Amino acid sequence: MSFFDSRWVPRPDHVVDSGAAGGLPAGFRAGSAAASIKTPGVLDVGLLVCDAPDVVSAARFTRSGVLAAPVIVTRDHARVDALRVVVANSGNANAATGPAGMDVAFAMQRAAAVSAGVATDAVAVASTGVIGVPLDADVVAAGIADAASALDATGDVAFNEAIMTTDAFPKRASLVVRLPSGEIRLSAQAKGAGMIEPAFATMLCFVQTDAALSAETADLLLGVCVKRSFDRISVDGQLSTNDTVILQCSGASGVRVAPESEDERAFGIALDALLRMLALLIVRDGEGAARIGRVLVHGGDPIAVERSARAVANSPLVKAALHGADPNWGRIAQAVGMALGGREPRQAPLALDIDIEGIAVCRDGAAVAYDAEALDAAARAKEIEYEVRIGPAHPEGAETEVFFSDLSHEYVTINAEYTT
Amino acid sequence: MSFFDSRWVPRPDHVVDSGAAGGLPAGFRAGSAAASIKTPGVLDVGLLVCDAPDVVSAARFTRSGVLAAPVIVTRDHARVDALRVVVANSGNANAATGPAGMDVAFAMQRAAAVSAGVATDAVAVASTGVIGVPLDADVVAAGIADAASALDATGDVAFNEAIMTTDAFPKRASLVVRLPSGEIRLSAQAKGAGMIEPAFATMLCFVQTDAALSAETADLLLGVCVKRSFDRISVDGQLSTNDTVILQCSGASGVRVAPESEDERAFGIALDALLRMLALLIVRDGEGAARIGRVLVHGGDPIAVERSARAVANSPLVKAALHGADPNWGRIAQAVGMALGGREPRQAPLALDIDIEGIAVCRDGAAVAYDAEALDAAARAKEIEYEVRIGPAHPEGAETEVFFSDLSHEYVTINAEYTT
Repeated sequence: MSFFDSRWVPRPDHVVDSGAAGGLPAGFRAGSAAASIKTPGVLDVGLLVCDAPDVVSAARFTRSGVLAAPVIVTRDHARVDALRVVVANSGNANAATGPAGMDVAFAMQRAAAVSAGVATDAVAVASTGVIGVPLDADVVAAGIADAASALDATGDVAFNEAIMTTDAFPKRASLVVRLPSGEIRLSAQAKGAGMIEPAFATMLCFVQTDAALSAETADLLLGVCVKRSFDRISVDGQLSTNDTVILQCSGASGVRVAPESEDERAFGIALDALLRMLALLIVRDGEGAARIGRVLVHGGDPIAVERSARAVANSPLVKAALHGADPNWGRIAQAVGMALGGREPRQAPLALDIDIEGIAVCRDGAAVAYDAEALDAAARAKEIEYEVRIGPAHPEGAETEVFFSDLSHEYVTINAEYTT
Repeated sequence: MSFFDSRWVPRPDHVVDSGAAGGLPAGFRAGSAAASIKTPGVLDVGLLVCDAPDVVSAARFTRSGVLAAPVIVTRDHARVDALRVVVANSGNANAATGPAGMDVAFAMQRAAAVSAGVATDAVAVASTGVIGVPLDADVVAAGIADAASALDATGDVAFNEAIMTTDAFPKRASLVVRLPSGEIRLSAQAKGAGMIEPAFATMLCFVQTDAALSAETADLLLGVCVKRSFDRISVDGQLSTNDTVILQCSGASGVRVAPESEDERAFGIALDALLRMLALLIVRDGEGAARIGRVLVHGGDPIAVERSARAVANSPLVKAALHGADPNWGRIAQAVGMALGGREPRQAPLALDIDIEGIAVCRDGAAVAYDAEALDAAARAKEIEYEVRIGPAHPEGAETEVFFSDLSHEYVTINAEYTT
């Protein structure tokens, strides 16, 4: 099966999926270890090393007001534009752990630096798992040493396993990208399933390429692509304390991606498709997800459009209806009404249009006649598209999308019965 | 069992519950009918009439951007300070029904006015149920005529039934209130269970008293009490298109509640307790609710406090943990972090304190040692209290509360499997 298996993220023509075997771009090695942070014998520490001393990197972090120690260490105590190494663990988020947690995150950074032979501030730290529980620095350090001894150019498959928590399947790709100036490689390992043992919707994503990018170009492209991928998904509307995305560029291919070049455009398209597909996989993994939805909102001002899309994607009513293959468009209207309501009563009725899978169900705020059988059949697909117009149509109107999981019994089971 | 059966809403000393038999204050009659809007034979149309020509009333409506026709008719085409009659139906919300729906709401208003012998603009209209489906004006009109022939001073019990949809139990009280100037009566009928057939969390509440209030006093007291009751609850964070609260004062007791008097204070306390208890009953009815929570947030500025309380109350993670009696405080920290996050990264860690049922679990953003067995036992109660401090303690700091239901399998079943 191809990595690009959603109608919403077609494979760009100049991108070739290297398949399930994995493999990192030139200049990268990864290693993993089972340090008994999770279940004994299960991989839970990963190390990802770029061998190029002149590596270029970029990063994005959660916007939560409560930041986990590894996020603070990476953001404030590492050179985010020159990260040689990523050290990550699963099974413990090292969040809400106070000054002692900061010490552990610093210790992880130092241990990884020593193991890989790089400066301490060239190391990014990432954690995911239970929060409010101390993480043992010695246990992780032993895992890091083990992982360092396992470094390999095809270590990405095991590295992906090492960062998983409740993920039902790995989220990983190794791509060959044909840029006008030459062929480069692009790989990524992500994790995220909506709910993490036992607390958070943490998503981590590490991206590697052997293309040569300036720090400015790497930061710009990563920023734009994260906005179009991980910023546009919702499993349960819950922002994590630990979200981290890192792009590392080794330059080992010799192909340089110059600003505003055709190479940059082609690289951007590939990175965009890669991150959007990984984001969709996270939505698809949302515990118990039977199907996923995409809501496309347009016609209003940017804030109204964004609020409406989020309200639909995060509505437990819409999500439960999606789960039950119930084309209940009234819940879409209600969510949009909530998003656009306010202290001041609206004087004119909202000009609201709703289509489900291309079938018009609501025009100008009122129900219209539709083929109920066709709609029911469409609602049983694995991917459902909702289109919402909240204002007059014009080509310059704001438009946005959010991909979201359904709300299932499994979601309740996993999150209600974790400790019982 | 007493109406006031929650530790969060103690019965005020000057309030006596008249018990389950019901009964309206002097000057009020109610009637109901089975018009086959819902299941044939089940009450689905209710009429509530104040016989005093100089009635005083006040109302509050949903702030949704998508308003149902009955809300528009009542808000914009009735004298909300002099409502003699309330006509309500269940089984159809008359929402997203366009101009035809407006015509039906106007027809209901006219039919009720004729049946009760009052001016058309003295009639409030309320509907709850399925949306986007035409409501038959003739069917409702026949129901209104039937209900008018059943008007009775103890008709409140049946009236409450007539406005129920998926409610598992009625929500109603008949109280005697001892004001300094004399005894008055206060009654109310409410509906709301989180999820209504099949779409909305509509809540309706109709309140009657035989005390005499000025229109200004009625509006002021209703506004304050709604803010402290129905504005502070969340079953699933979904604002309805149809929410309506109406207070009618017949003055038939002869006891006048003057502005800024001790009578006003005592009346306000009674109305506050009545609406808060009804609001709690709605939360308790949230489909499949095993237990309910109260989150109390203080220490920050008012906006931060409000956002944090809503984020906790609406978090599916917190709600699922509440359902499973899981004292998972990490989810509280995560929700507050999300509420207080933003585009600009926070420089200093958040000074976050969390207590569950009086047991300190988090201080200054970090886990503290606590008696896990005691906490587990506390988490199995029917009502769980979460206290969150998000800033320095000082007596003038903002403080707010939200009551919320849990997230259960039944919730998913009801909302995923309605049409299948």
